[in-house]
Amino acid sequence: MHTTRQTCLERDAQDPLRHLRDLFELPADTIYLDGNSLGPLPKATPERVAATVQQAWGQDLIRSWNSAGWFEWPLRVGDKIGQFIGAQPGQTVATDTTSINLYKVLKAALALRPGRSRIVSERSNFPTDLYIAQGISRDSGHRVELVDQDDIAGALNGDVAVLMLTHVNYRTGAMHDMAALTRAAHEAGALVIWDLAHSAGAVPVDLLGADADFAVGCGYKYFNGGPGAPAFAWVHPRHVDAAWQPLSGWWGHAAPFAFDPQYEPASGIARYQCGTQAIISLCALDVGMDTFLASQALGGMAALRAKSLALTDLFMQLVDDFASANGLSVVTPREHGKRGSQVSLSCAHGAYAMVQALIARGVIGDFRAGDAQQADILRFGFTPLYLRFVDVWDAAQALRDVLHSGEWQAAPFQQRQAVT
Amino acid sequence: MHTTRQTCLERDAQDPLRHLRDLFELPADTIYLDGNSLGPLPKATPERVAATVQQAWGQDLIRSWNSAGWFEWPLRVGDKIGQFIGAQPGQTVATDTTSINLYKVLKAALALRPGRSRIVSERSNFPTDLYIAQGISRDSGHRVELVDQDDIAGALNGDVAVLMLTHVNYRTGAMHDMAALTRAAHEAGALVIWDLAHSAGAVPVDLLGADADFAVGCGYKYFNGGPGAPAFAWVHPRHVDAAWQPLSGWWGHAAPFAFDPQYEPASGIARYQCGTQAIISLCALDVGMDTFLASQALGGMAALRAKSLALTDLFMQLVDDFASANGLSVVTPREHGKRGSQVSLSCAHGAYAMVQALIARGVIGDFRAGDAQQADILRFGFTPLYLRFVDVWDAAQALRDVLHSGEWQAAPFQQRQAVT
Repeated sequence: MHTTRQTCLERDAQDPLRHLRDLFELPADTIYLDGNSLGPLPKATPERVAATVQQAWGQDLIRSWNSAGWFEWPLRVGDKIGQFIGAQPGQTVATDTTSINLYKVLKAALALRPGRSRIVSERSNFPTDLYIAQGISRDSGHRVELVDQDDIAGALNGDVAVLMLTHVNYRTGAMHDMAALTRAAHEAGALVIWDLAHSAGAVPVDLLGADADFAVGCGYKYFNGGPGAPAFAWVHPRHVDAAWQPLSGWWGHAAPFAFDPQYEPASGIARYQCGTQAIISLCALDVGMDTFLASQALGGMAALRAKSLALTDLFMQLVDDFASANGLSVVTPREHGKRGSQVSLSCAHGAYAMVQALIARGVIGDFRAGDAQQADILRFGFTPLYLRFVDVWDAAQALRDVLHSGEWQAAPFQQRQAVT
Repeated sequence: MHTTRQTCLERDAQDPLRHLRDLFELPADTIYLDGNSLGPLPKATPERVAATVQQAWGQDLIRSWNSAGWFEWPLRVGDKIGQFIGAQPGQTVATDTTSINLYKVLKAALALRPGRSRIVSERSNFPTDLYIAQGISRDSGHRVELVDQDDIAGALNGDVAVLMLTHVNYRTGAMHDMAALTRAAHEAGALVIWDLAHSAGAVPVDLLGADADFAVGCGYKYFNGGPGAPAFAWVHPRHVDAAWQPLSGWWGHAAPFAFDPQYEPASGIARYQCGTQAIISLCALDVGMDTFLASQALGGMAALRAKSLALTDLFMQLVDDFASANGLSVVTPREHGKRGSQVSLSCAHGAYAMVQALIARGVIGDFRAGDAQQADILRFGFTPLYLRFVDVWDAAQALRDVLHSGEWQAAPFQQRQAVT
């Protein structure tokens, strides 16, 4: 059947996930394709945050550490996240930032592989992951070896302590085969750390099934936890009590309220906590997870994935009609098993101005600059919780119109800061 | 003049800071003497937090990184804190947690003193500070040497890399002479890290005047930033560009939006940032600081200190009348220059039950357990922003009544969790 705006509306009417959109506060006249950078506001968040601020903090004050259970929140929220990454209860903690959690797990992993001198990662990994590894390397003497995607398996040998990868690439949306690469690393005697920033809540993840060693990820993208929401960490049970993580603060102590001058790590993932957590932001992440959990009754991650693939397939099909004639090309893998929940278009020049022209039309995507090795990228995230097929149609039409009208070439646009 | 409840009311009527109390939401029928653990809610906070959640996040979404200036918040809020700790603008950053910031500055300080093998601290320092030092020591081989207060100066020699102290003791309220101890450490060639958790916003602090090297501190106590508010870090300009801090994440990069795979630290205190910050919690801290800044027009930290000393003098005077007969004694130093903004009473037994009986009467203090070396403590924080002289009178009367009635011996109280 030929795809038209009408057929998109019909698909939306039949979409079993269509009511999940009602759980979000979405600005009028906006198609938000940047939920992979900052997820939108769940409708339940303002009231829950206000209750934490006005009742739990304002009225109950210090007593809320008990009465509101604040001390338990990182593990309680962690368990909600755990349901979407193939973890068992008690294995995941929501705390600190992705970068800090990566520092914890990378130091712990290196301590478990003494005598091995290398950390292998991907040249196109998200930069902050590489920065954290470089900071550790400067102190510990480990060598950080950056390779291209196709060379990862070949780089694994008896001198590699840790393979550190981001599951779904932030620029291209390409997804690694977690199970296969984990197996390859283990065959070389190395441990694997997976950064799930662009895959948790975006694609089915099965950490235990893949036999992964460590994972970290983000609360403010697909989980809609709010700007700078706490991140998470997961550690396989076989490792969790085998090493101290280096940020040995009071919240990770075996008896945190005993005020013992000697540190004794808690057993389990609790030891991956450090200092007092930002409770108001953690409250917003908790609502983000509760909102995400509403998908469980409708088929959960499998249903979300099926819709995500349908949305991204549709967008690629629609832009194929006009992309190449305008110097654009889809760089996200076409094969379902090899991509996340975004579509990236490479562009020889003008990508930034195109994204700005789209934003002026209410279609919010984002831009990632290229360099000597790679072209500029227009990046569009497709989040099945709140996007409709008709949004995909309208976004593709807007891109076509921006290209054909040439309006992106006319306007002066300021360089925009971007986070992810 | 003999002190009565009436003379307390008269002092309140003449108190030039009396209107600052109106800036806080304080529960009815409560005297809150635990602002040294979790400061109360400023009245302006709910609306500002709601605006960040509903407008900046909900409506403006990803654009708020620019339009709301989120990226600048840690340094902007840091500068507000800097005014109360003797820092110049651009030297303080509000970010992460106290424990994590201590890790950053301790690692940086150790890197600046190669060849020295010891970290000296106080046995009665706040435990999480010791835990962080122990975590570093385990990795780096430095020895953590814990001494009693009177032995600090004697422990400083040519093998000491860092002297790490909390300025005001969390249990006793005793305050170190920052300038003298910093001088003694420098004479031994060591660097000094000051934890200001119980002094920032509680007593005048002059980091530059004392020639301190590094400092960290807390946003949720005297600065009223909300539960788990971001903490802060300060580094003397002579050191700030001299070392990497170990948590080398994207937010501390010289060009954080360039997505360069190589880490290059920003110059200045910006490099002490790591990952994406909890913006909603940071918003609440910003309001806490704006509320605190209202004191500047009324004499600022000097006026707050004068009232704090008057409040604590009064409380000590009042409890002196009945303390010893009931097995209590004031352990906080009487001398003004040697104490912070709290009064601690030691107690051979029953301290926890007494605090619970006080809470039942609406007087919220807290309890810190003792051990083989030290007795249990009843701890009362006196924060001149919102406490009145009559509150001190009523709190002392409540304590007297609790002791005389024996009600604390009757009730079964559950062990309470506590944070600080």
